[in-house]
Amino acid sequence: MEQAVTDFVKEISPRLQHWRRDLHKFAESGWLEFRTATLVAEELHHLGWSLQLGKEVIKAEARMGVPAAEVLAQQEQRALAQGALPQWLPHFSGGFCGIVATLATGRPGPVMAFRVDMDALDVVEMQAQAHRPFAEGFASCNEGMMHACGHDGHTAIGLGVAQVLKQFSSRLCGTVKLIFQPAEEGTRGAKSMVEAGVLDDVDFFTAIHIGTGVPAGELVCGSDTFLATTKMDIAFRGVASHAGARPEEGKNALLAAAQATLALHNLPQHSGGSSRINVGVLQAGTGRNVVADRALLKVETRGATNDINDFIYQQALRVVAGAAAMYDVQHEVKLMGAARSCQPTRPWVNYIRQQAARIPELTSLVDSRGQPAGSEDATYMMERVKARGGQASYIIFGTQLSAGHHNEKFDFDEAVMATAVKTLAALAFHIDSFTNE
Amino acid sequence: MEQAVTDFVKEISPRLQHWRRDLHKFAESGWLEFRTATLVAEELHHLGWSLQLGKEVIKAEARMGVPAAEVLAQQEQRALAQGALPQWLPHFSGGFCGIVATLATGRPGPVMAFRVDMDALDVVEMQAQAHRPFAEGFASCNEGMMHACGHDGHTAIGLGVAQVLKQFSSRLCGTVKLIFQPAEEGTRGAKSMVEAGVLDDVDFFTAIHIGTGVPAGELVCGSDTFLATTKMDIAFRGVASHAGARPEEGKNALLAAAQATLALHNLPQHSGGSSRINVGVLQAGTGRNVVADRALLKVETRGATNDINDFIYQQALRVVAGAAAMYDVQHEVKLMGAARSCQPTRPWVNYIRQQAARIPELTSLVDSRGQPAGSEDATYMMERVKARGGQASYIIFGTQLSAGHHNEKFDFDEAVMATAVKTLAALAFHIDSFTNE
Amino acid sequence: MEQAVTDFVKEISPRLQHWRRDLHKFAESGWLEFRTATLVAEELHHLGWSLQLGKEVIKAEARMGVPAAEVLAQQEQRALAQGALPQWLPHFSGGFCGIVATLATGRPGPVMAFRVDMDALDVVEMQAQAHRPFAEGFASCNEGMMHACGHDGHTAIGLGVAQVLKQFSSRLCGTVKLIFQPAEEGTRGAKSMVEAGVLDDVDFFTAIHIGTGVPAGELVCGSDTFLATTKMDIAFRGVASHAGARPEEGKNALLAAAQATLALHNLPQHSGGSSRINVGVLQAGTGRNVVADRALLKVETRGATNDINDFIYQQALRVVAGAAAMYDVQHEVKLMGAARSCQPTRPWVNYIRQQAARIPELTSLVDSRGQPAGSEDATYMMERVKARGGQASYIIFGTQLSAGHHNEKFDFDEAVMATAVKTLAALAFHIDSFTNE
Amino acid sequence: MEQAVTDFVKEISPRLQHWRRDLHKFAESGWLEFRTATLVAEELHHLGWSLQLGKEVIKAEARMGVPAAEVLAQQEQRALAQGALPQWLPHFSGGFCGIVATLATGRPGPVMAFRVDMDALDVVEMQAQAHRPFAEGFASCNEGMMHACGHDGHTAIGLGVAQVLKQFSSRLCGTVKLIFQPAEEGTRGAKSMVEAGVLDDVDFFTAIHIGTGVPAGELVCGSDTFLATTKMDIAFRGVASHAGARPEEGKNALLAAAQATLALHNLPQHSGGSSRINVGVLQAGTGRNVVADRALLKVETRGATNDINDFIYQQALRVVAGAAAMYDVQHEVKLMGAARSCQPTRPWVNYIRQQAARIPELTSLVDSRGQPAGSEDATYMMERVKARGGQASYIIFGTQLSAGHHNEKFDFDEAVMATAVKTLAALAFHIDSFTNE
Repeated sequence: MEQAVTDFVKEISPRLQHWRRDLHKFAESGWLEFRTATLVAEELHHLGWSLQLGKEVIKAEARMGVPAAEVLAQQEQRALAQGALPQWLPHFSGGFCGIVATLATGRPGPVMAFRVDMDALDVVEMQAQAHRPFAEGFASCNEGMMHACGHDGHTAIGLGVAQVLKQFSSRLCGTVKLIFQPAEEGTRGAKSMVEAGVLDDVDFFTAIHIGTGVPAGELVCGSDTFLATTKMDIAFRGVASHAGARPEEGKNALLAAAQATLALHNLPQHSGGSSRINVGVLQAGTGRNVVADRALLKVETRGATNDINDFIYQQALRVVAGAAAMYDVQHEVKLMGAARSCQPTRPWVNYIRQQAARIPELTSLVDSRGQPAGSEDATYMMERVKARGGQASYIIFGTQLSAGHHNEKFDFDEAVMATAVKTLAALAFHIDSFTNE
Repeated sequence: MEQAVTDFVKEISPRLQHWRRDLHKFAESGWLEFRTATLVAEELHHLGWSLQLGKEVIKAEARMGVPAAEVLAQQEQRALAQGALPQWLPHFSGGFCGIVATLATGRPGPVMAFRVDMDALDVVEMQAQAHRPFAEGFASCNEGMMHACGHDGHTAIGLGVAQVLKQFSSRLCGTVKLIFQPAEEGTRGAKSMVEAGVLDDVDFFTAIHIGTGVPAGELVCGSDTFLATTKMDIAFRGVASHAGARPEEGKNALLAAAQATLALHNLPQHSGGSSRINVGVLQAGTGRNVVADRALLKVETRGATNDINDFIYQQALRVVAGAAAMYDVQHEVKLMGAARSCQPTRPWVNYIRQQAARIPELTSLVDSRGQPAGSEDATYMMERVKARGGQASYIIFGTQLSAGHHNEKFDFDEAVMATAVKTLAALAFHIDSFTNE
Repeated sequence: MEQAVTDFVKEISPRLQHWRRDLHKFAESGWLEFRTATLVAEELHHLGWSLQLGKEVIKAEARMGVPAAEVLAQQEQRALAQGALPQWLPHFSGGFCGIVATLATGRPGPVMAFRVDMDALDVVEMQAQAHRPFAEGFASCNEGMMHACGHDGHTAIGLGVAQVLKQFSSRLCGTVKLIFQPAEEGTRGAKSMVEAGVLDDVDFFTAIHIGTGVPAGELVCGSDTFLATTKMDIAFRGVASHAGARPEEGKNALLAAAQATLALHNLPQHSGGSSRINVGVLQAGTGRNVVADRALLKVETRGATNDINDFIYQQALRVVAGAAAMYDVQHEVKLMGAARSCQPTRPWVNYIRQQAARIPELTSLVDSRGQPAGSEDATYMMERVKARGGQASYIIFGTQLSAGHHNEKFDFDEAVMATAVKTLAALAFHIDSFTNE
Repeated sequence: MEQAVTDFVKEISPRLQHWRRDLHKFAESGWLEFRTATLVAEELHHLGWSLQLGKEVIKAEARMGVPAAEVLAQQEQRALAQGALPQWLPHFSGGFCGIVATLATGRPGPVMAFRVDMDALDVVEMQAQAHRPFAEGFASCNEGMMHACGHDGHTAIGLGVAQVLKQFSSRLCGTVKLIFQPAEEGTRGAKSMVEAGVLDDVDFFTAIHIGTGVPAGELVCGSDTFLATTKMDIAFRGVASHAGARPEEGKNALLAAAQATLALHNLPQHSGGSSRINVGVLQAGTGRNVVADRALLKVETRGATNDINDFIYQQALRVVAGAAAMYDVQHEVKLMGAARSCQPTRPWVNYIRQQAARIPELTSLVDSRGQPAGSEDATYMMERVKARGGQASYIIFGTQLSAGHHNEKFDFDEAVMATAVKTLAALAFHIDSFTNE
């Protein structure tokens, strides 16, 4: 890495920390990143990147798991009260908190894209001195929302990359796109950006994550074990009746849900690889002496491949329809999230490994950790890029964690942000050396 | 009771016993009463009753729970080898072992009908000295079939009534019909006789039973607690696959059956009165390591009223269709038997009580025992007669039993047969005294 | 009825209405009748009745379904803010809102007791002009609590009786006890008063209800179809784990609950009479992708007799223990309510009918309505009185309702209160005429 | 391969075919290999191998899935009638049809063992001209038993090896053991031989199979994908009662079995690798109108590792105990078979590959086919040898099949037998060249 870049990143490191901590304090969960998005837009605009915002980069119908309208409205008001910038807010209103920033060099060359995500989790952050964000005053002030997965860091990294690339834009060729995605948690947001066409001109795509158990100093250059997944809410609607006096007049949604649950958990045996199903939540009924007329299941399927996940998912749809028929109740399945399995492309992984070798902080470079991971909707973006013949990978920057992801004590070593900025910058600066062998 | 009739019945009592023991020895279960029916037909023909046989009195499509064709054929051959009369057998061939004998007096008067049933049960009779049929040499020689419900006695009573009424036919008016029904066990046969029109001219109908816990000397003149019932076989057909190597290729009929079973047993809560369901038999699968492609459920529903039973039955159909849909398997529901709840008509019960008072052996006359009983398909006949404005009842002659009905040690005090013959004769002889108050 | 009593009741009728409407407005649900109880105590004390309060008449350990301590404390504060009398409140603090008022005449005679209940329901009252309590300004101001079962009227009747009996106390002999019970809804309170010994000296016991579908002008003198019941909350506690990454580390409380639910609904087939079970509420799990570690079932059993209910209940305990064992989760069963089946004593029903004949507003007197009813925990009191050889009944005063019980639009014709006061007074005034034939 | 050996094997090839076809015709399934074992013993004895027989090599208590005593007795009689040799039969009587033949050279050297299995399957062989065994007159004459997995060939190979090694015994050193195992199907027999100590002196162990989809000419030198498995029969015993009249008196084994089935199929989600469960057979109940008092489940678990299988198995035991408790029925779990996952030892696989290179018929040598396979109880033997520090592998000789294993049309190209004999002989003859690198 050239010294100038290294020096510049060092110089902006305090701002990376500042951004991260500000975002951490005003944590906003999926589709509600109103304040976050306005600040990001302002910063990028200030730096001179071209912006596409809101519905330009998010297809409304392809969004999944969007909160109810009243929640969106409330949270937008809260965001305003917490410093969201009114000049940008209208773009994101209604749950369209996505941004694509573009830097077209005018010089011939490919289109390269980086994806970072911006959403927090529905977790109550620990309020205790032992937890650094609390001790240092940047714990979440939004109860029930917490950056417990590091996306605050991802957003800061994205802003850092925007600064560095702008600063050294003369070294770039082609076009660079920075994608700031909402609602990655629950794998709800990426598909809507893909369907808005955001990836349709991208030749080289890289999504990033920090942590996930990777040791500090290590870079996973081509994480390849994400499970395909589908998330769904299943509602059963029957007819209530007095359970003692008129049991035969009820249509029992609770029993339909119980029966469906057992059958759903019967599904996942597949010779093609790992498959999963989970009914994580079952809520049914209103009173002890009433035949329950409503039930809700929160379900997810997963599979080592898209085919396996689709198989389990299709079976699940059949199971719930059958269970509803058994008890003569209505049912509705609402898609709440989805992600794909997706293999990084080999040449791009090789290129990433080569460029990462330039970064002294990265002392270990591996292609994959091999272990089954969770799910990631950046896979939708990877799939689209690959479908067009492009190169794609998903990379993970190791860092010391104070607790596991999604835990109320989650925190990370902020030094990883500078490392990530430098690595992504290196990918951009040397793209002319990429060879597809 | 006039002395002449009493004396005559006393005279034929040994023949009642002879018939009963012969039928007991060559027990034939439902739809397989080939030998029985030929002997009954011969006797009635010899006495001079007009006969309608086989398909004349049994509507083929309305039969339920008929054994497979090869079983019918085998048992017909066995009947021949055991003394079935070849001149009558063709009428009954294929499972049409019903007889209606008619005595038209030519004198004005109503049509009166008595029903007796002829079938044995699928029970292995006890072979031990303590069991009188064995000790006295008339235990069933047909392994797995036994007259453990007294229908051998019923048939003998029917033949006794035929003799007495013929002997004293000058005292009769109108028309008398004797209905010898097959396949009462499992409530499979009566409906087919009703649909053949056998009851369509009947003004006064009486079905009989002996035993059932009623003490010797007592007559129940209007048993009114039969439960409506539906019997069905439910077959699920899926797709087999190797459970270890290709679990996802199977469509699991066993799981569909298990799920249906639990849901069926969830059904019977009804504010209208007693309701029941039972999955009595579940047979599924062929090998431990094979996803089961076949399952069979033997199910019955019951209800204190026809409406309750129909409600449970309709729900059961829905449940099995839903369970099949859940596991993507085929299913077929086969009706195997059915009976109705039915109240005797009050004036007829009163008349029976009055006539029974003439029989000195009947020392206790009650209308009903009040306790929930099983099911009886003579209720179909009662319902048809009542629908036409006729009178109907179901009467039970108490007698000492050696063991409960359907038990391998079942036997009864044969003296009840003469009592029953006299009582039914009295109903016929005094019909001109009936008043519908 | 003597004119003097009639006139007096007419005179106090406005106060009956006033009390009822005040209680209606400040509705308090079971174990939370803090304001209600202080007002009742003050009134009775003012009239000169001897009082036993709180723990004197309620055995702490025998209470069922008591709200959590923080709810009790909050509601007690709210009651104070809404006019609960501080001088009486300490007696009822902590959920002991029961009162027994005694009038010992000093003259020889039996002990007679009347029971009224004071609790509201957890129902949100309709706020609309079409609903009289709203139109006339006495709809509940406590959201989520509503007198939708008429206990406000019962309490007012109790106070009216207290006035009349005091006014004409010279006509009484023996002792009269007025029992003001908390937490009848959910059948949670009566048992604790029985176990405190409140009924141990009672010779004649009468519990009352208004409405329940009985037409205006009719008195049911001996309601005899209450079902025995047991209410329970069943909690399963397992171990959470990530459903995708570590499914085998979880112990699934949701599956245990689903399995238990199906098995519980398999229970109720009983030849002895009606039996019921209902899992009315199932709440399980915290997140879609987490193996659920907690589940809660709200269950009730019912039976036409105590034996049937006990049988179903015992089986239910076995089922939930087995289901917990299947999934290796902990479980806890918490008794939340219970009531008995109980037959009124015949002589007392006769006496009530005779006395009611004196009340011109009562134009129809029946012993029973015959139809299956819900459950009532006054049956515990009846059972105790009968066990000591006393007489007991449960009577229902018909009245015009605006909507069924437990409905958000429930209201009743307040004229029924004066009728009830006069009827109960008549029972007390003429007890010397009671004969146990 | 030296010409002398090649020539000798060619010379005995007709006898290999003769043996195989004789065994095929008189197929005997697991633990019933009475005739087979006497013929093998006679042949080995004649050749001069030292024999250990029956209980010397089979530990009675460690046998699994042994047929009922009356079946053993019947089949032993049938074997006699079909030519079993009376002088050897007593050793095997009662289901102890195992043989270990030993050739101790007296020269220093290791102990080497080969395992072949002798049992047929419970399959009805196709009787049609298109099926060579039928066309050429050696189809099974024992209806319902068929060598549909090639163990007839394995036994013939074992006898061929016995001949060759004896013929050229001067080239051997150390000791050679030939293990003829009963009841490999259902993985029932190997453990009993291991526990009898048969493997306790073995340094080099090789089990063989033919076919399994491996193409003709290929040798799999170290098959490594066998799943660990446990087979069990689970019997529930409740109490029967009349489902209509006395439902509450029954203890329902059928419902317990249905509930257990659903819960068992809920088990297999494991992050460690493939896991399986299958309830392949469910048989419950005796009559439609009877609360079922008996139920039987035939179940198997599988796992990619012993740990996974053990985990699923232990959970399954818990599930069935819980289900029995739910319905208050007794239950019994009977172990019917078991096998282990087991990796071949690398040096031994290398040695096998080297030696196989000498055999011109083997044109393709691979270590593993990689695909998930079924289960094999030779893994118990491998595990024991490895536990003592020995070398072990499982090898598969490809051959052309007429239909898949366990199919009624199964047949194989008998030329594979000579190839196998030569390969095993080569392993024995060159053991001094083995090096553990």
